[in-house]
Amino acid sequence: MSAEQPPLIAAIEAGGTKFVCAVASGPSSILEETTIATTNPKDTMHAVLRFFSGAKAKHGPFSAIGVGSFGPVDLDPASKTFGYITTTPKQGWQHTDIVGPLKTQFKVPVGFDTDVNAAVFGEYMWGAGQGCDPLVYITVGTGIGGGVIVNGHLLHGLLHPEIGHLHVPAPAGEGALSKECQCPFHKSCMEGYACGPSIMKRWGRKADALPADHPAWEEVGEVLAHGLVNLILTISPRRIILGGGVMHQTHLLPLIRSKVRGILNGYLQLPEITRNLETYIVSPGLGDRSGILGALALGQGVHRLKSKTGAHRG
Amino acid sequence: MSAEQPPLIAAIEAGGTKFVCAVASGPSSILEETTIATTNPKDTMHAVLRFFSGAKAKHGPFSAIGVGSFGPVDLDPASKTFGYITTTPKQGWQHTDIVGPLKTQFKVPVGFDTDVNAAVFGEYMWGAGQGCDPLVYITVGTGIGGGVIVNGHLLHGLLHPEIGHLHVPAPAGEGALSKECQCPFHKSCMEGYACGPSIMKRWGRKADALPADHPAWEEVGEVLAHGLVNLILTISPRRIILGGGVMHQTHLLPLIRSKVRGILNGYLQLPEITRNLETYIVSPGLGDRSGILGALALGQGVHRLKSKTGAHRG
Repeated sequence: MSAEQPPLIAAIEAGGTKFVCAVASGPSSILEETTIATTNPKDTMHAVLRFFSGAKAKHGPFSAIGVGSFGPVDLDPASKTFGYITTTPKQGWQHTDIVGPLKTQFKVPVGFDTDVNAAVFGEYMWGAGQGCDPLVYITVGTGIGGGVIVNGHLLHGLLHPEIGHLHVPAPAGEGALSKECQCPFHKSCMEGYACGPSIMKRWGRKADALPADHPAWEEVGEVLAHGLVNLILTISPRRIILGGGVMHQTHLLPLIRSKVRGILNGYLQLPEITRNLETYIVSPGLGDRSGILGALALGQGVHRLKSKTGAHRG
Repeated sequence: MSAEQPPLIAAIEAGGTKFVCAVASGPSSILEETTIATTNPKDTMHAVLRFFSGAKAKHGPFSAIGVGSFGPVDLDPASKTFGYITTTPKQGWQHTDIVGPLKTQFKVPVGFDTDVNAAVFGEYMWGAGQGCDPLVYITVGTGIGGGVIVNGHLLHGLLHPEIGHLHVPAPAGEGALSKECQCPFHKSCMEGYACGPSIMKRWGRKADALPADHPAWEEVGEVLAHGLVNLILTISPRRIILGGGVMHQTHLLPLIRSKVRGILNGYLQLPEITRNLETYIVSPGLGDRSGILGALALGQGVHRLKSKTGAHRG
């Protein structure tokens, strides 16, 4: 393959419901794509490998593979279980090796990260986060998760961000069935108040069955705004992107912005906060494609890294 | 000066009470040091410049200057007020140019950052944070502030971290004079519950006059632990360092560790949290020298940067 031709990448968005698999040489050059149900690790991974084998036969070998996965995942390259989904509550998927079978079959570098880190990377490269560093992406859906970019790199530390469990002041509203949050671990965390299943448990109705003027939304908006305020005061991002199923309620984003401004209460005198929250807290630029395109970006990233390392050998 | 000789650095820890000024070629090679009261900008800066002029005459020219300053400060190199203390509540010090007079007089590069970013840098280089990246340093004293290192760099974004104002669940205890926090901006932030003046306002007595079994400490410990939990779930640091006057109450650190473990409640299955909190949440390795040695590290950093840039010109 000539240096000018963009490398062919295999990309996987590994979700708890479905695996999206694509072969692409860029965000607008997707050669083939499929969706595979997340059943059990054996069947799902078998279908994934079969899809990519077929794609390789048709389109030629991949230069790298990128995977954004549901988790928690092991991202420590020094660990024996690097590339595994670890202690997930998803039945049957505990301690599942994702990277291993891909490496064995295709013998190319694999870029592996959390689903939300993939999404923030996708948005940073091609979506609403272009030119914004630090950047935060949060998904509010079946759970709440977040990915973070700092200085052009995905944030990893002891683990990866677990933003969904940020602890926040208990919401002021009185209508919910319980004052404490619904998280099995915590009493007052963001996910326990504001993810889809928590909304259902707290208010007795599904999020998309609650009218826009239902008091549940005041609570959800307040909780998410407190979480965002904490991220603003810690990471100091240049933009925050809010995705996920719960955010499909279009009245929620303006409510969150207004509550963020109210909670900060003039403390940060920055035009992004005091005047331009509409361009500071935004929807994903890639819609529901942040994850799969982020996986593509992860594959491109690990390919670039390997190419550089190769060049240094000479 | 030969390449082997470590560069001479002028370091300033610019605090709300005093400016510590030192001339040094390393953390254990301090040639001269003085303390100047923080009165008004004119007198204080005049005394600072006079000290360094004298030191230069004795020890030779500096290669760079490092400043860790109370704030908020403007760290945006593109800004017209870069190097200024901006909207500080400290009377007379609003919109004070700190970097300008130093550059004008000594014509060397100035590394400028917040006092807490300087402290985290000092601890990272020579203290309790060596080899720990990401690293968080928090001071709990007259206010609460924090500095963060990610991938070897101090964390900046839209602004710098303002960790003191992280929003946390209201403390469960009932003995305080008020349920809401004491922050003039916020209803439930860490500083408003747990800095020295807030403790005084909430409990009617100064922190060091409260016995170790006073209920105030349960509250302070709980609030700080919630803040730490939020930092762990966001930055995922490899170590957290807790300094400042309030932390001189030696019973507080073990209490915070125990509450962090309790609040996380097994959610993060990491040995650092489940077993080794004693080496994960620690006191500063440099005692009360984190700030001035951090300023030295900032000076060394900007010197290295300028040397590299110089080398690239050839």
